[in-house]
Amino acid sequence: MSGAEVRRGPLALVAGGGDYPLQLARILAGRGERPFIVAIDGVAEPETFGDADVRPYRLGQLGSMLDELRRRGIADIVMLGNLPRPSFSALRPEASTLKYLPYFAKAFRGGDDHLLSGGIRFLEQQGFRVLGPAEIAPELAAPAGPLGRRQANAEQRELLQRGFALLDALSPFDVGQAAVLADHRVVAIEAAEGTDAMIRRVADLVARGRLRIGKGDGILVKTPKLGQDLRLDMPAIGPDTLHNIAEAGLSGIGVKAGQVLVGDRVALGRLADQLGLFVEGFT
Amino acid sequence: MSGAEVRRGPLALVAGGGDYPLQLARILAGRGERPFIVAIDGVAEPETFGDADVRPYRLGQLGSMLDELRRRGIADIVMLGNLPRPSFSALRPEASTLKYLPYFAKAFRGGDDHLLSGGIRFLEQQGFRVLGPAEIAPELAAPAGPLGRRQANAEQRELLQRGFALLDALSPFDVGQAAVLADHRVVAIEAAEGTDAMIRRVADLVARGRLRIGKGDGILVKTPKLGQDLRLDMPAIGPDTLHNIAEAGLSGIGVKAGQVLVGDRVALGRLADQLGLFVEGFT
Repeated sequence: MSGAEVRRGPLALVAGGGDYPLQLARILAGRGERPFIVAIDGVAEPETFGDADVRPYRLGQLGSMLDELRRRGIADIVMLGNLPRPSFSALRPEASTLKYLPYFAKAFRGGDDHLLSGGIRFLEQQGFRVLGPAEIAPELAAPAGPLGRRQANAEQRELLQRGFALLDALSPFDVGQAAVLADHRVVAIEAAEGTDAMIRRVADLVARGRLRIGKGDGILVKTPKLGQDLRLDMPAIGPDTLHNIAEAGLSGIGVKAGQVLVGDRVALGRLADQLGLFVEGFT
Repeated sequence: MSGAEVRRGPLALVAGGGDYPLQLARILAGRGERPFIVAIDGVAEPETFGDADVRPYRLGQLGSMLDELRRRGIADIVMLGNLPRPSFSALRPEASTLKYLPYFAKAFRGGDDHLLSGGIRFLEQQGFRVLGPAEIAPELAAPAGPLGRRQANAEQRELLQRGFALLDALSPFDVGQAAVLADHRVVAIEAAEGTDAMIRRVADLVARGRLRIGKGDGILVKTPKLGQDLRLDMPAIGPDTLHNIAEAGLSGIGVKAGQVLVGDRVALGRLADQLGLFVEGFT
């Protein structure tokens, strides 16, 4: 989490869904690097990576995937993108994966963090090093300060600070990476539904007259949990998040600098300006 | 909050929506007591109180309502039932209420607790005593132990304890009186949407395959905030809550004993048995 680049050998990029794996592949290509891309079946689309070195794998093909990494002499792994929370029964393990199952049976009993940190521990036990996306490409994470022209005003900053404190208080419960505050109070807290569904809920409450959000009121906070391992499941915002909060009538987004992925920050800042929103990183 | 009955003179029952005001009126009638019932316009239905001494009032008629209480020599007030969070502009104050507006302009800036405690402080400043429904009728609140035949098992109790700890951690933020835990984690936290909408969200996540709830898994916790003034907006569960959680595939409800309204506990215990749920109060 230093943000400084780490020295490393050839890299495997385990790609889930969404735009972030593509952005990271693009950044690496820009540095003349050609990672081996493991496209997780059902969420990543191999063809979107163009002529990159990409191969699709099901979760149940973990065994042959690790064999392939070893064959290629790859020791460093970065994982990025949306993963559906897998059900243990839906893994459909192939023969080469069966021997690893006991590691995972236990990890499935617990919150997301539990499951993910179990995955990292497993890979480390197998001799791999797992790196965070922001270690490899610090430019993917939110910088301190505003991304576009707008900046939170004093009243919005007060709501943001209350929101950050709320999410910190939720950290021990392995839940809640985002919340919406408006009308001087907390109006929505994210759990299993995800950030976008939570924002839609706020829009719905407003539409049904259950909640009033005045102009300049209403903010989204998004942070990792305190002490969260940012090598996996780093919280992220993107163009969809901005469109969603604009539609819900919120005024902006506060994130913890360096700890939330924003992808192409120039493009996101431009979109924020177009939508009249602030998007700001706080240290 | 002792649960012991308090000595008092004639009583005004300020009735919001739902069944609880009716139940309290019935309990009082059973004791030969005939309170003056203030039916809040738009939520309470005066005709449901039968031949009780009931009169409808808009929130903007606060002034003439207080005049009427004074005329009748009533010093004790109990408030019970659902109130829509009023918007300041929708108050439509009549002349006799205008003088009180400054008290409320400030109270509207903050969470629900802030608004409600402001209301209690106001009534006390006006010389009234505000009593909690459980002070007047302790039998309306959850007792310690199960209401029906079922009781939480060890695994369910573990989830319940984690849920109570979560709600306690949320207390300083004036939000979150309920949460759903299932599948070894927190899956939903209530904020502005209300308990029923939160439960429907869980049902929806299950229906869309985003969440799995096994048989015997899945619990609802509901508690007041730590230090919450239980004279107003005491948390409540009722038949609808039980039907909703049964529909969502949850296995039961844990509440803090003496601090959550359950209404007719015999009837609710019978319904719990019918639906195969536990409903249990914890000290």
